[in-house]
Amino acid sequence: MTTVETTQELKQNTFEMAIDWLAAGIRPEDSILFVQSHVPEVLELHTYLSMVTQMGKLTDLPTFKEKISQQPDNVNYGLLGYPVLMTADIVLYKTDVVPVGIDQAPHLEFAREIVRSFNYRYNTKALIEPQVKHTEILKVLGTDGKAKMSKSLNNHIELASTPEETAARVKDMVTDPARIKRTDPGNPDICNVFSMHKIFSPADEVEMINRECRTAGIGCVDCKKRFAANLNLNLEPFRKKRAELESRPDYVNDVLSDGAKRARVIAQKTMEEVREAIQLP
Amino acid sequence: MTTVETTQELKQNTFEMAIDWLAAGIRPEDSILFVQSHVPEVLELHTYLSMVTQMGKLTDLPTFKEKISQQPDNVNYGLLGYPVLMTADIVLYKTDVVPVGIDQAPHLEFAREIVRSFNYRYNTKALIEPQVKHTEILKVLGTDGKAKMSKSLNNHIELASTPEETAARVKDMVTDPARIKRTDPGNPDICNVFSMHKIFSPADEVEMINRECRTAGIGCVDCKKRFAANLNLNLEPFRKKRAELESRPDYVNDVLSDGAKRARVIAQKTMEEVREAIQLP
Repeated sequence: MTTVETTQELKQNTFEMAIDWLAAGIRPEDSILFVQSHVPEVLELHTYLSMVTQMGKLTDLPTFKEKISQQPDNVNYGLLGYPVLMTADIVLYKTDVVPVGIDQAPHLEFAREIVRSFNYRYNTKALIEPQVKHTEILKVLGTDGKAKMSKSLNNHIELASTPEETAARVKDMVTDPARIKRTDPGNPDICNVFSMHKIFSPADEVEMINRECRTAGIGCVDCKKRFAANLNLNLEPFRKKRAELESRPDYVNDVLSDGAKRARVIAQKTMEEVREAIQLP
Repeated sequence: MTTVETTQELKQNTFEMAIDWLAAGIRPEDSILFVQSHVPEVLELHTYLSMVTQMGKLTDLPTFKEKISQQPDNVNYGLLGYPVLMTADIVLYKTDVVPVGIDQAPHLEFAREIVRSFNYRYNTKALIEPQVKHTEILKVLGTDGKAKMSKSLNNHIELASTPEETAARVKDMVTDPARIKRTDPGNPDICNVFSMHKIFSPADEVEMINRECRTAGIGCVDCKKRFAANLNLNLEPFRKKRAELESRPDYVNDVLSDGAKRARVIAQKTMEEVREAIQLP
């Protein structure tokens, strides 16, 4: 809502994301999967946190400056407060550990600062400073080989795409820009396709590509074909499960509504402690 | 919470304000009297409104600039959003008309702008543009004769004070600064004590003072004594009722909790419409 032109697709996008996660392996019996807006307590906490967050720290954040340049005509108040809302999303649930990519580390450090401000200001231990846990792959670049893979930058490979669509996206990926002709040797160390191979391809194939690329033994077209094939192989079980979930919207909605119920129990307990700490009338 | 150093007195201050209002004549059977934090929906609406409010409009507001200069070490994010929260306080209850002093008119105009943004963005009529209704006395200056009477500036006359305390505050009021000696003629047109006489003193006394001040027929000391006496006379029924309410905290809390229940019914209905308009998942 801080960035989109229209909210008409929110419901559909939320459903798509939920089935992505479930298909990727999140188990509702072990994890509480819920929709942010189903737990309105987060917006209450967000407003209390906004009053212990210095404005200058928000305007200084690189992500805010980036957003301003992306949407100069819509620098709304909520956009500035996005990291505060993110903090509320984390600490409302007494979160100990947050698994994030490296680009989110500053936001988590920011969340820890807000928690310290709140706890100090109201002399309480109601909120917990969340610890960061980096994912095994710290950062996945997009097909442009420059920015983080992201739907809004349209440099992403959609998990739910068909094998053919996936292969087409891979075909357009940027490789070592110095390798212009097929006969030029390449440098896998700076090639994003090679980085992806390391995630999705078998070890012996990765080794072969690392060797043959440097001597122009393998070309980019072949290298990408191999990567597309391996990626599709990896995504096959995901796609199968996703298609099955797609045909069972009632089950997915039940998971989300059950998740919201369980999340709200935690949220309401935290909010009682928060209101008590502030000594709200 | 956007301005105070400590929230330890919030509960007591809230109680004091409630009995001030009840003693001043607000009838719980005709009016819904409630505490803001008892209706958390307002913070939910506040966050949604924050995303249709341009940040530059908030930083441009004179009241924000004033606050920054008053508390340069605590320019928090919530302080910037104060007019957004005020808007939520108004529109959550489908308010048609807001009775305010003249200094609040820009905030109400701002609220109307946010409502228009929201209704336009989400193509809805869920929120109502509130109309301003000015109070009969547009502005009451403080004892300094300069700024609006306000507790935070300590230029106020406490409604709940004793007659003696009130007289002492009146004694310190700033009058026509050009009238230095008792024999100097004064100018009631620029004297705040005279403005107050017009509110609280009988017409014939006001007329006499208007005449005698200009010819030094009456001195400031006498003029203030007369004003203090008239003010105390006006406040006597209020003080009596207030003392009675002070001894019945259970009744006051019942009024507030009943008010919150009634307010919440309206708030929840509005929020349903708001979420529907946004098409929240």
